[in-house]
Amino acid sequence: MNKKGILVVISGFSGSGKGTITKQLLTNYPNTYALSISATTREPRPGEVDKQDYFFVSTEEFENMIQQDAFMEFAQYVNNSYGTPKEYVLGHLEKGLDVVLEIDIQGALKVKKAYPDALLLFVSPPSAKELKRRLKERGTEDASVIDSRLSRACQEAEGVEHYDYFVINDNLEECVQQVHSMIQNEHAKTARNLVLIENIRAELKSFVKGE
Amino acid sequence: MNKKGILVVISGFSGSGKGTITKQLLTNYPNTYALSISATTREPRPGEVDKQDYFFVSTEEFENMIQQDAFMEFAQYVNNSYGTPKEYVLGHLEKGLDVVLEIDIQGALKVKKAYPDALLLFVSPPSAKELKRRLKERGTEDASVIDSRLSRACQEAEGVEHYDYFVINDNLEECVQQVHSMIQNEHAKTARNLVLIENIRAELKSFVKGE
Repeated sequence: MNKKGILVVISGFSGSGKGTITKQLLTNYPNTYALSISATTREPRPGEVDKQDYFFVSTEEFENMIQQDAFMEFAQYVNNSYGTPKEYVLGHLEKGLDVVLEIDIQGALKVKKAYPDALLLFVSPPSAKELKRRLKERGTEDASVIDSRLSRACQEAEGVEHYDYFVINDNLEECVQQVHSMIQNEHAKTARNLVLIENIRAELKSFVKGE
Repeated sequence: MNKKGILVVISGFSGSGKGTITKQLLTNYPNTYALSISATTREPRPGEVDKQDYFFVSTEEFENMIQQDAFMEFAQYVNNSYGTPKEYVLGHLEKGLDVVLEIDIQGALKVKKAYPDALLLFVSPPSAKELKRRLKERGTEDASVIDSRLSRACQEAEGVEHYDYFVINDNLEECVQQVHSMIQNEHAKTARNLVLIENIRAELKSFVKGE
């Protein structure tokens, strides 16, 4: 087993429960996982804590971070910008923690391009019908609001085939266990253990030579 | 989740415990796994049952099977031939069972070439020292015998980098659970769920159109 952490990206439909899964992972296995903290130029909302919920930065600071290549991925919208600071993530990976990025599919694909060994998980309810039901449950019956959420879900599903796993969240506890095992098994991927394998081979050869 | 079975290849060092792991999988989850049965031209040993331990066939029958492209992989040695009959394996995969092939690395790589979505697991003791210890435990202290087993282990390790997972068998029960989760998680691979994903997408779109 290698000791370097796994870079994990979790995306999913709104209403898929991806946020709850991530929180549960961190709660159940606090010495295994770290959650990436995004930088944003938007104002903190009531209750949000700097360096915990987000790194709240000025537009100028954000621009500087772009210039310094300090982001794993970032996106700039009309009003606000969001980015994943490299230093925090890479530092925790070096310490052997598996770092979870909860980002959208555009960000996920940028991360995968720059870090091909990132593990990408997409969380989905068991069916489109179930997704619609969950979106309706979120407190509105306004058809146009539900329609726009469904449209957003369609966008969220573009590019899903580039993810490693398509995780069905039917039962939360089972889903958390499954995601945990997906990430932990990743440590046993052959490609992540080439040094260990080479060492075992070399040692075996030395035994044969009777050294 | 797709319902088609996963083609699983388990290889590993002699003394890695791969046989015990396979048996344990079949015992613990009899409705999930099937074990592939090899065809061989060698004589049955006392206690071996035809169609259970092996398909015992004549040299002519074996040659016919080669001609009919009836093997997933086969190997012919000076005295005997061994092969993995396709029909048995593919039939069980269609039924939704995950089929385990316990074969050596040469056979494994042939299977992977013909069936790229096969899942390849290589089982190893935690270290070369531990492997040496286990080989010694097998009832001989004869240095030349141990040496030849170690040489064989060196050969067994050639090509390991083509496997998906390098599984350390330190604790048998934990290892069986890990192998089980590796195989079961494979069902959630995006590439194995493209139809499901396309269906969810299409259904979402139909909702947006208000159909």
